[in-house]
Amino acid sequence: MIIVLKDGADPGQVERLSEDLVEKGVKLYEIQGVSAKVIGVVGDTSLLSADVLMMNECVSKVLKVQEPYKLAGRRFNPESAVVDVNGAKIGGGEFAVMAGPCSVESEDQILSIAKDVKISGAKFLRGGAFKPRTSPYAFQGMGMEGLELLKMAREKTGLPIVTEIMSERHIDVFARDVDVIQVGARNMQNFNLLKAIGETGKTILLKRGLSSTINELLTAAEYALLRGESQVILCERGIRTFETATRNTLDLSAIPVLKEKSHLPVIADPSHGVGYWNYVSAMSLAAVAAGADGLIIEVHNCPDKALCDGAQSITPHLFEKLMKKIAKVREVITEE
Amino acid sequence: MIIVLKDGADPGQVERLSEDLVEKGVKLYEIQGVSAKVIGVVGDTSLLSADVLMMNECVSKVLKVQEPYKLAGRRFNPESAVVDVNGAKIGGGEFAVMAGPCSVESEDQILSIAKDVKISGAKFLRGGAFKPRTSPYAFQGMGMEGLELLKMAREKTGLPIVTEIMSERHIDVFARDVDVIQVGARNMQNFNLLKAIGETGKTILLKRGLSSTINELLTAAEYALLRGESQVILCERGIRTFETATRNTLDLSAIPVLKEKSHLPVIADPSHGVGYWNYVSAMSLAAVAAGADGLIIEVHNCPDKALCDGAQSITPHLFEKLMKKIAKVREVITEE
Amino acid sequence: MIIVLKDGADPGQVERLSEDLVEKGVKLYEIQGVSAKVIGVVGDTSLLSADVLMMNECVSKVLKVQEPYKLAGRRFNPESAVVDVNGAKIGGGEFAVMAGPCSVESEDQILSIAKDVKISGAKFLRGGAFKPRTSPYAFQGMGMEGLELLKMAREKTGLPIVTEIMSERHIDVFARDVDVIQVGARNMQNFNLLKAIGETGKTILLKRGLSSTINELLTAAEYALLRGESQVILCERGIRTFETATRNTLDLSAIPVLKEKSHLPVIADPSHGVGYWNYVSAMSLAAVAAGADGLIIEVHNCPDKALCDGAQSITPHLFEKLMKKIAKVREVITEE
Amino acid sequence: MIIVLKDGADPGQVERLSEDLVEKGVKLYEIQGVSAKVIGVVGDTSLLSADVLMMNECVSKVLKVQEPYKLAGRRFNPESAVVDVNGAKIGGGEFAVMAGPCSVESEDQILSIAKDVKISGAKFLRGGAFKPRTSPYAFQGMGMEGLELLKMAREKTGLPIVTEIMSERHIDVFARDVDVIQVGARNMQNFNLLKAIGETGKTILLKRGLSSTINELLTAAEYALLRGESQVILCERGIRTFETATRNTLDLSAIPVLKEKSHLPVIADPSHGVGYWNYVSAMSLAAVAAGADGLIIEVHNCPDKALCDGAQSITPHLFEKLMKKIAKVREVITEE
Repeated sequence: MIIVLKDGADPGQVERLSEDLVEKGVKLYEIQGVSAKVIGVVGDTSLLSADVLMMNECVSKVLKVQEPYKLAGRRFNPESAVVDVNGAKIGGGEFAVMAGPCSVESEDQILSIAKDVKISGAKFLRGGAFKPRTSPYAFQGMGMEGLELLKMAREKTGLPIVTEIMSERHIDVFARDVDVIQVGARNMQNFNLLKAIGETGKTILLKRGLSSTINELLTAAEYALLRGESQVILCERGIRTFETATRNTLDLSAIPVLKEKSHLPVIADPSHGVGYWNYVSAMSLAAVAAGADGLIIEVHNCPDKALCDGAQSITPHLFEKLMKKIAKVREVITEE
Repeated sequence: MIIVLKDGADPGQVERLSEDLVEKGVKLYEIQGVSAKVIGVVGDTSLLSADVLMMNECVSKVLKVQEPYKLAGRRFNPESAVVDVNGAKIGGGEFAVMAGPCSVESEDQILSIAKDVKISGAKFLRGGAFKPRTSPYAFQGMGMEGLELLKMAREKTGLPIVTEIMSERHIDVFARDVDVIQVGARNMQNFNLLKAIGETGKTILLKRGLSSTINELLTAAEYALLRGESQVILCERGIRTFETATRNTLDLSAIPVLKEKSHLPVIADPSHGVGYWNYVSAMSLAAVAAGADGLIIEVHNCPDKALCDGAQSITPHLFEKLMKKIAKVREVITEE
Repeated sequence: MIIVLKDGADPGQVERLSEDLVEKGVKLYEIQGVSAKVIGVVGDTSLLSADVLMMNECVSKVLKVQEPYKLAGRRFNPESAVVDVNGAKIGGGEFAVMAGPCSVESEDQILSIAKDVKISGAKFLRGGAFKPRTSPYAFQGMGMEGLELLKMAREKTGLPIVTEIMSERHIDVFARDVDVIQVGARNMQNFNLLKAIGETGKTILLKRGLSSTINELLTAAEYALLRGESQVILCERGIRTFETATRNTLDLSAIPVLKEKSHLPVIADPSHGVGYWNYVSAMSLAAVAAGADGLIIEVHNCPDKALCDGAQSITPHLFEKLMKKIAKVREVITEE
Repeated sequence: MIIVLKDGADPGQVERLSEDLVEKGVKLYEIQGVSAKVIGVVGDTSLLSADVLMMNECVSKVLKVQEPYKLAGRRFNPESAVVDVNGAKIGGGEFAVMAGPCSVESEDQILSIAKDVKISGAKFLRGGAFKPRTSPYAFQGMGMEGLELLKMAREKTGLPIVTEIMSERHIDVFARDVDVIQVGARNMQNFNLLKAIGETGKTILLKRGLSSTINELLTAAEYALLRGESQVILCERGIRTFETATRNTLDLSAIPVLKEKSHLPVIADPSHGVGYWNYVSAMSLAAVAAGADGLIIEVHNCPDKALCDGAQSITPHLFEKLMKKIAKVREVITEE
């Protein structure tokens, strides 16, 4: 940790600050620059808060040198993690696509889509039972009934199921019934939820928050990893920016950055990232080319409803075509 | 709701879309522009999802005319709400400051600060018992013990207490012990938490999420208000932008916007909004001048600790001076 | 154009607004919603300013249906443009990479790099002579001398040269000496510069501004296209967001969006977009997979300077490897 | 400057880097942390580029301790600057409001408004002759004719005139005719324009770019100040964020930050910052409360045009009322 002092900082204050730091067991190295003075702090700085240090009148800036995560970082885990969910593997060279509808709507719907995406090569079935909706007046998902339909689809297809948890109160049910527990962008910093799921031993799909930095995503993963029970898959799903032509801005550069900083598998969610079906194929291929270990893609199937018609009714077909291109891009990326 | 169709949209698809909409009980008005065709949708559009409509190949854009909130909006509640917490009032012309330490640290600390801020004119005591911290290795607050100290401070000073809830599992305790339950920025869209607190009848202090729009803040409030039991105070506390000179960007224009769109009380949190003590006074006064119904300000008191020294030890003194200026600015703003 | 009126708007004001609009030659269609009233405006709305309309007390929102560009849009130019610069083609199925150093530094440097990138398959040589630098104390480029060195490199390799213009005063020189005139992100809305270059007939490489929307990029291109003399290549080069792990956030979703809205060639600049060499290969491949018509990549060559050593000295070698992978990804993307 | 090395950096590379730095005349201090090693660089670091240093494979981060501006900074100019334009003063305790129409439209219009705002206490007349418009099809201002009308209004009222420059080619005319040359947000980093105006000796009103940090605003000012001829007034006018309820997000915290870092006068532009007339009064008062040295406000006067009617026709009247409140808030802020 580096502490930059203010020009003309009061020597008495600096001395008190230094004494207090030394008392906490760290070593100090002072560097007198042309105008500002800098203190290098060496040792276990995990208990020193930059915010608290900034409250000293003599301090101008505090710069952290070490990353604030260990279990989620590659520094202490040089080898890429392979997450294995009932035989479906992702990370460390294993590539996997999770596919399925935004919301589970009926038995017919989920079964039909599950079979289609399995044939096309998806390794996991995704589907929302509990839906986080901005408006309380919007459809909130089928709830427990949706979970049952997902389980039925799993039984029929053998695909592990991925679905989002919305409440600490559902942890027991999810730990029993779900293969991969998804923590959505809105709950990425719901720390109590993360800690509680981390104790279940279930694999967690952790989505990046809309305004969360890559560092914050990794420290959120750290919360879930601390009990040592659960595995975590990281997911880039778009951040919020000023651009409105897409629903969010899919930050694909997060993929190589995360792969460098962390050993955990990293996937992308182009469906939520861009928000419009016609851009999903392009962004799926781009995510694979950027080095993603997998994708999570929404696939719909609603041939006879006007509200979801035309191009949409052939989406399992588009998914099939996309999966073939994904495989080819993946091949180019991974060959030496 | 306005649906803009694509140029050269397939007439069959448009017809199916129209039939489906009419089936849902709304009326349609078509406008043929020079290039694009537009459909105006009149009636109860609350069940129509823009996202689902966008999935139609023939649709180019969907524009919402109505706001997606009712209970939180001024349209149906023209008169400004006065929130009354054990006699401490805020909103509808009543101005209130909530003050206290970031974290409750000890009996001495909280009692001393509570007395100081009460003398200076604060109407509420704030203090963190459960702290949301980016890093799992940082101090997470005193927890239940902190709550007990807050209750003791309330008993000694008569100030209602405001403190943040982090978990659905704590709702019963908070409903029993706390006067104003704060929902932090990270949990603004933790909808299950909002619904559960909304059933307790307790006043909620709802902070705007780091990347939440004003509309999203109001629809989050709607979740809490739906049961009709609780009152809500809205709080602008800074949004995340590219600027790093301040911790967040305090969006003071949200104050007049919220006051126009909603009848609920609106306060600002300059402490978290800017993140540096030396800017808090300026931004407090600015928030009052912008029309805020109140402020929530961190006040520290740590005279003999090097990690929190110098200017910080006189902070209750600065708070006292600030409160006098706040009163004068408030007077200018409210006079005819 | 759609005008949403306020609830309880004054009928007299609405009537005056309507009369004034009709006087401007447009047709009006009124739709009375449950609460709000909406006016559809049909005809030539290019002279109606949403900002001016918003100044009417009775207006709540103004929504534009038509895009504010014509020459840059695909609507009136359905066929993708092929830009041809002395035989080097880009767009409409033609793919091209522009490569070279950030700044021209010496004859040896630019010649050596130019030869290397040509051998690896680059179609254009890029290099900065005039450099936009945040700080006035930083190296501002070699200026005219740099231009001369670029011309020499063009003569030796046959590669057309791409370089950034910083001043209206240099337009004559650039029109004479440069093949593709680059307008940097900081000047994307320097409209007088755009108009002046648009008159030279030279091809323009227009980079997206750091905080510019896709629509603004296209309307900026419209300024340059209005005289009908010049061709424009659009370039996504990263937008400014809260994320600091990369210098900017490369918005690759802008590529499919731009390809849909516009017929102009679209390239990506991964070097500036991410800012760190170790992420450039991944993001180059991702941009190609997303459908880019080309790339602009910085290639350095400084084997014996400590300030630019190690991995950097082999960068032409990395570029060679990257170009091979780019070709393969491009093949996957373009095959039926 | 602080250079953080990578874990396991190659010692040979670190040595070459160190030698190269020492050759440039700076002193190095090494600190070996628990994992990472840090090099403190002391001396004249103005020629060291963080970007170039980052190109070394062994470097993980580069942290600048010193600010990259001198003439614009308070460090070397502790006393607040008072800018004096023909007797109209701003900064260093002097407060001034600049007011007038967005665009100059006619002699009647500009004269009438100029007189009105003068009576209400404005010290400067603002008005656009050359307008930067996103769309090339929008009204681009009256140009030179507008300048003549502004001069006439100056003659009649004695108010110095403030107007925006769009082109380097207009510098001579502006230097002759205009009192304060405004550089708009889109041109904040048009460095050649800044340098050229800086040579005229005219006062510059420098607006913050839509995505510019406070540091970038100050380094842009540095470009203009380097010749030592011109004075600069800094202007916060809103930054671009995800929020759409206001046109931009007026970053009022920039005011105390700029006042701390710089001795130059700082004003706010609430009109462009929020974009809607009904929020301008609140944000004007907030800016004054935050410590602004002045404001620039759009005042319209169009009593008999439907496109600009109702509440708008009384705007000079609203301005008059606002100016009285501004004076009172200013009084509260400045009293001891």
